[in-house]
Formats: sequence, C-alpha cells, structure tokens
Amino acid sequence: MKIGLIGLGKMGMNLALNMQDNGHTPVGYDLNPDNLTAATNNGLATATSLADLLAKLPTPKIVWVMVPAGGPTDTVITQLSENLTAGDIVLDGGNSHYQDSLRHAELLKKQAIHFLDVGTSGGQAGARKDGNFMIGGDPDVFKIVEPLFAAIAATDGYLYTGPAGSGHFLKMVHNGIEYGMMAAIGEGFDVLQHSQYDYDNQAVAKVWSNGSVIRSWLMELAQTAFEQDGNLDEIKGTMHSSGEGRWTLDTALDQQVATPVIAMALMERYRSLSDDTFTGKVVSALRNQFGGHAVDHE
Amino acid sequence: MKIGLIGLGKMGMNLALNMQDNGHTPVGYDLNPDNLTAATNNGLATATSLADLLAKLPTPKIVWVMVPAGGPTDTVITQLSENLTAGDIVLDGGNSHYQDSLRHAELLKKQAIHFLDVGTSGGQAGARKDGNFMIGGDPDVFKIVEPLFAAIAATDGYLYTGPAGSGHFLKMVHNGIEYGMMAAIGEGFDVLQHSQYDYDNQAVAKVWSNGSVIRSWLMELAQTAFEQDGNLDEIKGTMHSSGEGRWTLDTALDQQVATPVIAMALMERYRSLSDDTFTGKVVSALRNQFGGHAVDHE
Amino acid sequence: MKIGLIGLGKMGMNLALNMQDNGHTPVGYDLNPDNLTAATNNGLATATSLADLLAKLPTPKIVWVMVPAGGPTDTVITQLSENLTAGDIVLDGGNSHYQDSLRHAELLKKQAIHFLDVGTSGGQAGARKDGNFMIGGDPDVFKIVEPLFAAIAATDGYLYTGPAGSGHFLKMVHNGIEYGMMAAIGEGFDVLQHSQYDYDNQAVAKVWSNGSVIRSWLMELAQTAFEQDGNLDEIKGTMHSSGEGRWTLDTALDQQVATPVIAMALMERYRSLSDDTFTGKVVSALRNQFGGHAVDHE
Amino acid sequence: MKIGLIGLGKMGMNLALNMQDNGHTPVGYDLNPDNLTAATNNGLATATSLADLLAKLPTPKIVWVMVPAGGPTDTVITQLSENLTAGDIVLDGGNSHYQDSLRHAELLKKQAIHFLDVGTSGGQAGARKDGNFMIGGDPDVFKIVEPLFAAIAATDGYLYTGPAGSGHFLKMVHNGIEYGMMAAIGEGFDVLQHSQYDYDNQAVAKVWSNGSVIRSWLMELAQTAFEQDGNLDEIKGTMHSSGEGRWTLDTALDQQVATPVIAMALMERYRSLSDDTFTGKVVSALRNQFGGHAVDHE
Repeated sequence: MKIGLIGLGKMGMNLALNMQDNGHTPVGYDLNPDNLTAATNNGLATATSLADLLAKLPTPKIVWVMVPAGGPTDTVITQLSENLTAGDIVLDGGNSHYQDSLRHAELLKKQAIHFLDVGTSGGQAGARKDGNFMIGGDPDVFKIVEPLFAAIAATDGYLYTGPAGSGHFLKMVHNGIEYGMMAAIGEGFDVLQHSQYDYDNQAVAKVWSNGSVIRSWLMELAQTAFEQDGNLDEIKGTMHSSGEGRWTLDTALDQQVATPVIAMALMERYRSLSDDTFTGKVVSALRNQFGGHAVDHE
Repeated sequence: MKIGLIGLGKMGMNLALNMQDNGHTPVGYDLNPDNLTAATNNGLATATSLADLLAKLPTPKIVWVMVPAGGPTDTVITQLSENLTAGDIVLDGGNSHYQDSLRHAELLKKQAIHFLDVGTSGGQAGARKDGNFMIGGDPDVFKIVEPLFAAIAATDGYLYTGPAGSGHFLKMVHNGIEYGMMAAIGEGFDVLQHSQYDYDNQAVAKVWSNGSVIRSWLMELAQTAFEQDGNLDEIKGTMHSSGEGRWTLDTALDQQVATPVIAMALMERYRSLSDDTFTGKVVSALRNQFGGHAVDHE
Repeated sequence: MKIGLIGLGKMGMNLALNMQDNGHTPVGYDLNPDNLTAATNNGLATATSLADLLAKLPTPKIVWVMVPAGGPTDTVITQLSENLTAGDIVLDGGNSHYQDSLRHAELLKKQAIHFLDVGTSGGQAGARKDGNFMIGGDPDVFKIVEPLFAAIAATDGYLYTGPAGSGHFLKMVHNGIEYGMMAAIGEGFDVLQHSQYDYDNQAVAKVWSNGSVIRSWLMELAQTAFEQDGNLDEIKGTMHSSGEGRWTLDTALDQQVATPVIAMALMERYRSLSDDTFTGKVVSALRNQFGGHAVDHE
Repeated sequence: MKIGLIGLGKMGMNLALNMQDNGHTPVGYDLNPDNLTAATNNGLATATSLADLLAKLPTPKIVWVMVPAGGPTDTVITQLSENLTAGDIVLDGGNSHYQDSLRHAELLKKQAIHFLDVGTSGGQAGARKDGNFMIGGDPDVFKIVEPLFAAIAATDGYLYTGPAGSGHFLKMVHNGIEYGMMAAIGEGFDVLQHSQYDYDNQAVAKVWSNGSVIRSWLMELAQTAFEQDGNLDEIKGTMHSSGEGRWTLDTALDQQVATPVIAMALMERYRSLSDDTFTGKVVSALRNQFGGHAVDHE
C-alpha cells in the first residue's frame, strides 16, 4: 500500500520505517527540510511539497498525518480537505483531542473524503516496530487500510474502536491510565528512596519486571532508566505533560465520574512545575497568625 | 481557684494570664528560667521547682500541664504521678495524642489521681482570652474544675466530651478539619494569584470575612496576614505540621473512613518540604524512555 | 434608588426585601406568577411583564438580574440588551460563569448599556440581610450603585473587584474554597461518627463555633443542622453541585496550579452520586484474577 | 533441596507444586486436614504435625512459612523458634509487615536460627510457576537457599534485597504500586463505560495488552476478567484490601513523602465499603442550611 505520511518527526519517521520494513510504501513529507533530508538518508521516499506528495499517490489517495495535535494538525487537515477528492482517506495518527477529530471528520466529509482517527501508542519504539493503534471511523474505510495496521502493529496490537473520534478518545483514556501508572511507580520508588534500606533501583525494577504482579512495559523502561542513572541524579523531577491526562480528567468531570488517582497524578505533575506555591505561603502565614508557628522566609 | 500551671511557653503564659484576669490564681512553673522571669514580669506567681509548686497548692491540688506533647508531657505526668496523692487533679491542656492520654489516665488512676485531657483551641489569642476547650475524663472531676473553664473560655466555648481521651481525640479531629480548611483557603488564593485579574488579597480576605458563606476566623487571620504582606513575598511556602493532621488521617485509615480532603491537605504539606521529588524524577525518566520527551536536568 | 429585580426565587425575593428594608425601592418581576403573587404578599412592588418593569423605572434604568446561571441568564440579558438604552445599568447577581459575564458585558456594551457582574454570597440569609457582594465592571458605574450595596451588604461586606468578570471569578473561587471547607468539616464529623467515643454532634459543632480555630459560619450552620437531626438520619449523603466547584477546578487546571483539596472535594461529591463504581468492579475483578480474592456479587 | 512448607492454602499449595516440579522436595504441613488431604492428592509429601514435619527434614532444616500475616505467622514463627536449633533456616513467604519480620528475625536469632523474609509476588499463577521473590536477611543464608529460588522463580524473578525486613518492605511497596496501577486501570475503564462510545472492554484490554505503553500483566488479567463478564455485571465494586497498601501509606507518611496516588487508591477502596457517608450527609445538610438546596432523603 502506498501511503503519504505528513510529519517526519520522532514518531512519523519511525512509522515510515516501520511501514517500509513491513511491505508498504510510505512517501514522507515534512515542512522541516532537515527532517526530509533525514528521511532520505534513512532510505525513505519523500516529497518536496504537499502538492508533490499528493501527485505521487495513486487514487484513492491515503494520507497519514503525524504532526503535533492542535494547530498544526488543524492546518494540515484543512489543506488536505482542499486538495484531496472524494474517496480519498486521511488518517490522523497524532494525539488529537477526540472532539477535534469529530470536527475534522465533519470537515472532510463535506468533500466525501474519509477520515480515520488513529490513537497511536507504544512510544517511539512502537512506532518503529510492533506498534499499537486504536482506530475510529467508518468500518468500511478501516477495512481498506487494515492491512497497513496488520503490518505495523504488534500481534493483536490494533483495534477498530467504533465511529469517528472513538480512536482518539480511547487513546486519551489510555494516557490517563498511563499517568496513574507512572505516578504509582514513581511514588513507590520515592518510598524506597527514603527507606531505611539501601535498594538498588535498577535491580528492583528488574525483579519487578519478571514475574511480579506489577510487571509492565513501564517497569521495564524504569529498569533501563536506572541502568543509565541509578538514582536519577541527572534528572530534575519536573513532570511536563502534553494534554491527554488533562483531557481525561475533563471528560471524567463532564461525566461526574470520580477518578481521584488520575486527578492526583495530573496535579502531581502541575505541582512539580513550581518550586514553591502560594497555597503554601497562605497556610504557613495562617499557622503563624494563630499559633505563632515560625515561618520559613524567602 | 488556685491552680498549678506547668509550662509557661506561648500557650501556657497566655493561659495563666487569662486565668488571673478572670478571678483565678495560677502559680506557674517552667524548667526554663527565662520563662519564669517573664511570668514574674507579667505579674504571675511562680514556683522554683515542682516541689515548690506543689507546696504552694491547697488540697486537692489541681495542676494544668501545658508542655509539648510526647516526651515532655510523658515526663511531667510521670513526675506528677509520683508526687501527687489521691484526689488531686491533673489536666493536660497540650496537644497530646488521645492514646497517650488514655495511658496517662491509667497511670494516674493507680494513685487515685484524677486526670482530664483538655483539647485547647483558639490559638495564642484564645489562650489569652475567650479560649476553646474540649474536656475528657470523669464527669464529676470535670464539675470540680468547670468554673475555671467557664472563666477562661469564650461563651459556650468549652465542652465536656466524655471519658478519658475524648477531649484530645476531639481536638485531633478539630485539627484535621483545620488542615482541610486552611488548604482550601490557600488553594483559592493560589487560583486568584494566577488569574487574569489583579485582586488585592487583603481586600478579598476582608470581604470574605464579612457576610460570605466562607467567613471564618481563619479568613480573618488571612486578612491580617495580607495586611502585613500583601502577596506574602517574605514567606516561603514550606508548610510544617505538628502531628495532629497525621493522627486524624491515621484514625480515619484505622476506621476505613475515606477522608481524601484531609489526606491531601496533609500530603500538600509534606510535598512542600522538598524542592524536588524522586517521584518526579522517575516519571520524567519514563516519559523520556518511551516518548523521547526532554527531561529537565539538575 | 429604584431598581428592577428580575427573578423572585429564593435569592431574589430575599434581596428585594433586603433592599426595601434598607431604604431602596425594588420593583420585582418573574416569569412565574406564583413568585409575583408571593412578592405582592410580601409587600413588594411588582411588574407584570418586562416592558411593564422597564416602564416603571426612571432613567437611567437599573436592573438586577437574579435568575439561574446559564440559559435563563443568557435569555434575560439578551432581552435587556434589546430593551434598554445607552446609560442604563444591568447587574447580574447570579452564579454566572465569569466568561459568560465577559460575553454579557460585550453584548450590552454594543448598546452602551453598562454591566456589573455581582458575585453574591451569604446564602438565603445573607440575601435577606447583611449580604456579601463581589462586584466587577466599570468603576464609575460601580460608584453609581454603591449606595445600594452599602445598604444591603454586611458591614465591609461588598467589594469592587476590578474589570468585567472579576466579580463572578471571585465568587467562583469563593465557592471552590467553600467546597473544600465543607468537605473538611464533613470528613471530621465522619471520623467522630466512627470513633470509640459517643460525641453529641450538635454540642461539638457548638463548641467549635465558639472560640476555636475552625469557628466559621459553616460550623454554625452545622450546629443548626444537628439541632434538627442529631445524626442526620433523615438525610442521604448525596452531594449535588451546581457548577462553581467544577469551574474553579477547570480554572486551576488551565493555570496548572495544583489544588488537590478542591479537586478531591469535588470528586467526593461526584462519587456520592452513585451507589457503586465501575472502577470498583475492575479492581475487584483484578484482585480475584491474580490472587483468587473473593469478590462481592451483585 | 528438601524443604518444610507450613501452610497449604492457595499460595502454599501452588508453591509446593512449583518446587516439586522444579527438582526440589517439599514436605507440606497445614493445621487444616482438608488442605493436607488435597496436598496428598496433588502428589505432595505431607506431615501430620509440626514435630512430624521437622522430623522429616535433614539438618540444617529449612522451613518455608506460608500462612496469613499477623497472628498466624507469629504463632508459627514462635513455635519454630522453640523447635528448631542453631543453623536451621526459616523463610517467611507471606505478606508480613516488615517490622514483624524484623521482630521475627530477632526472636530466631536468639536461638541462632536463620531467618529470611521473602516477599512473594506473581499471584497464585506465579506461586505455581515462574514466581517472583524479594528476599531479605543474611546474604550467606540467602546463598544456601538460592537454588530453590532459581528453580521456582521466573527468569530474573528473584532478588536478594538486603538485611532482614528488606524483602517484606519491598513487597509492601510493590503492593502500594499495585494499588495505584489497579485504580488507574479501573478509573480508565470507568470513563470508557460512561463515554458516548460503545467500547468492547475485552477488546480494549486486549489491544492495550499488545504493544501499548500501558501493557502489563494487570491489563492482561483485565482482558481475562472481561472475557468472563464483559461489563462485570456480576461483580460488585466493593474493593477489599489486606493491608499492604495501608502500610505503604503509613510508611510514606512516616517519611513525609507525598504519595497522593497511592493514598487515593487506598481511600477509593475504603469508600467502596459503604453505600453512603456521613461526610455526604454533613455536606448535604450544610448546602441545605445556607442555600436551601434540596437534600435527598433516606
């Protein structure tokens, strides 16, 4: 299957190589010439413009969009809605909000262009090999591109999830779970780090990766991280986030479903962005006011 | 009523003055000679030793202990158990764990010495005037000293709470609630501080102190704190704690009662004690491992 | 000051009576004829239609809107934008989202109609007497109606908060704090209820209302509630919410400010809406899968 | 290696079979005659009393204790301390609190009996095959029994963790992480269950088990659970707990380390044990008091 791939960043490049390794023919395009050069060096076919890309694709054209969620994805989808024609297929493999995907599906539908929203998991390694894909949209359209997913996914690693938006919704919730799991692992190692015992974090992550109830890919990744830096001395504990945990929480709040663990995993991340808090200043000032408790000074 | 008062720190000194202002006759004692001198300068009668203190009290002797919870209170109560006699009365007005108070009650009971555990609220200002007291122990013994509480408490500001330990248990839960309230107030001002509007914290605390649903003494104290330092620039947000929030949480856990707000108020305090967390390092390392997300470096 | 008051429900009726008691002249209007009849019976002037109401007001016309937030407020403000003229003043005293108020201010501004967003606290009792008001909008317009606030608010119980939206924003955060405070109080009594002691809830709320650190209007209300039903046997613990706690949390998330206590107070409410959770089913099923732990059956 | 195994319940029986399958010679003993019969039926050698068991073991005697933590383990260890002799080895493979294990190590040491605390993970399946073991105690003693662990553990699935108590401490933290992971998974499926889409839980758990970032044994177990009951209609969401999550939280609180995710995972479990809460009653009563908001009635 020949497929246009827009976006040759960390994820897109790996996906393209994965496709090529598994019998498909990606043609890559990226606004960034460095990425295009890297793709060429990696042995990938590339295009020099969107028009060039589309010209290189047979009909119906299949285009996989792999650019940052939000503005960049909006822009690309809009361009595609103006340059593709009825029967073509757009896949958004990025981390788009599912409501954006519903909007994108509507926009493309006006031109009778098909749209699949593809939640992509497995990280960079999974993009490169044995990835994980959750695909929403028209089931007949899914059938057309299913061979591609069968080729690039892990065994049993792709799923048709239902109508438009359901793929990205599922990926969103996947990431919400991920936030909670990662926080749980982090907190556990934090307790170990403060314990009276002298654990070897790498050895702990390793034994927990083999036969324990909490064995998981994240624990294996922890093992790798501790191999590189046994006490993570080089890493600051600032936890950034790219939105999907927040969206999961928003959704839970809309549903009036209690998700305290996911909520606290997110708040823990926000808390890590600041050295100090105004909350803390107020509480400290109040303790001083009523009890004369000493405050620490800036 | 003549009463021995052991411990002339911030709370004990104010309580002694409160008693004296309201028709009772405290005799103060403290291991720290500076505190004794200060008491004398404040016009209080003092004793130079425990023996001297007890010698100055009529029978039955009434002794109010107001020293730090834990070791110091244990020491004083043990000394009193050895130096008082049947029918004397010991009150512990400190922040003792209620299980310590149960133990102290047992110890003194062996000598037929009475014990009342007195949870004291209202801060230093309340110790000085219109205080708040929750009193556990034998109801007949409470009756004997009730005039003292009537004199030093706010109107309706004292309560006989039941058998030994119930006074300190109630004070413990009071502090648990206090943790939650303070955190809620702190978080609210944190949101204001980050808002698009330019609120005057002192004016906000003032308006909220007059007629609003959240009017409270803590809000009035916030107003005072903001009067002194409008954005609390001088104060670091380190939130120390002296144990009762933790004990409330322990008790809730023993009861298998969910108290997420009190739990998070406590955790927020612990979190404030560190600039960084190992949890954060682990989560950040994991994000880097699977997604190639940049980490911040130490 | 003659003022039109649209909305004669629980809050509006009390506000009208408060205005009338304090030297102002409200004219009430409500779509519900029962409310109009009740207002007449309470000695209030009323109007039979919006047109009638506006006809009864001098120029510049001052109209206080006190209807449910969202759709109803949108409708009334739109009608007013079509029927008032330049220089007239609209106040929204309801619980509108501050972003709605920004929108309403813009809409009215097109007709040169002034708008003040008024966060109203103090509950029904405060609406009736000694209320609490946080007012955003043009400072010169605020000056015009300030005598009204001075008349109906508690001493120091009103505040000009800044530009449009700032009144409702502040009220929103006020409610966020309220959620946290109420949850803290509830959790504290929950621990008491499960304790080994036999506390009289009403007596506890009373003593805590007099001189303690946690004295507050909410604690006084707890005392009243326990007076009516000492163990709240008649009340189910379902905690409904009307939006402002959620909005506060949304805002904190937008700001990436950690507010775990407010978040958990909200989640506790959502959790109370269901007897059981799917989270619980999954966790229980997992425990059964790995450890053979018994599950409870439906 | 010939080894006495006290406790032939779900875990002990599987462990004995695992040992026997992998070249070792367990002799089982259990107070419950049904368990003894079952062991015999499973082809295991058994003993009819503790004396009989010890008589059947060569010197130094090696005894693996696999009975419930707390009282039962205390009893067995005490009996062993009275019946074993210098140089014998006791292993506690149960879920004992690490402080109990420190006490047990001391008790046995007085008789020069060796002790290893063995945290056992992997559930019943792991006990039967490819288990997971974290072993604290004297390293030389560990060396003696290491071949046993090598035989019954998964590859890389056992670890010598340090001095006495370190094995059970690590298992405790493992379970704390497990609580958080399970709650995160549960909450995610709860959001799916309330979504606008109609996901097949079993298919979702399956795709997430293959190539996704959150792939884990727990997710595989979720897949199995959903295979058996797609929406868990038969299971009530009551989440029981056997102590190790609580101990992890206690430890974190002692360390003043913030572990909000583990804390909330535990509280979610406690909350599930009640249909209603007193917290909810209080909050509902307060809302009624100030705002006249309707309460739900029992």
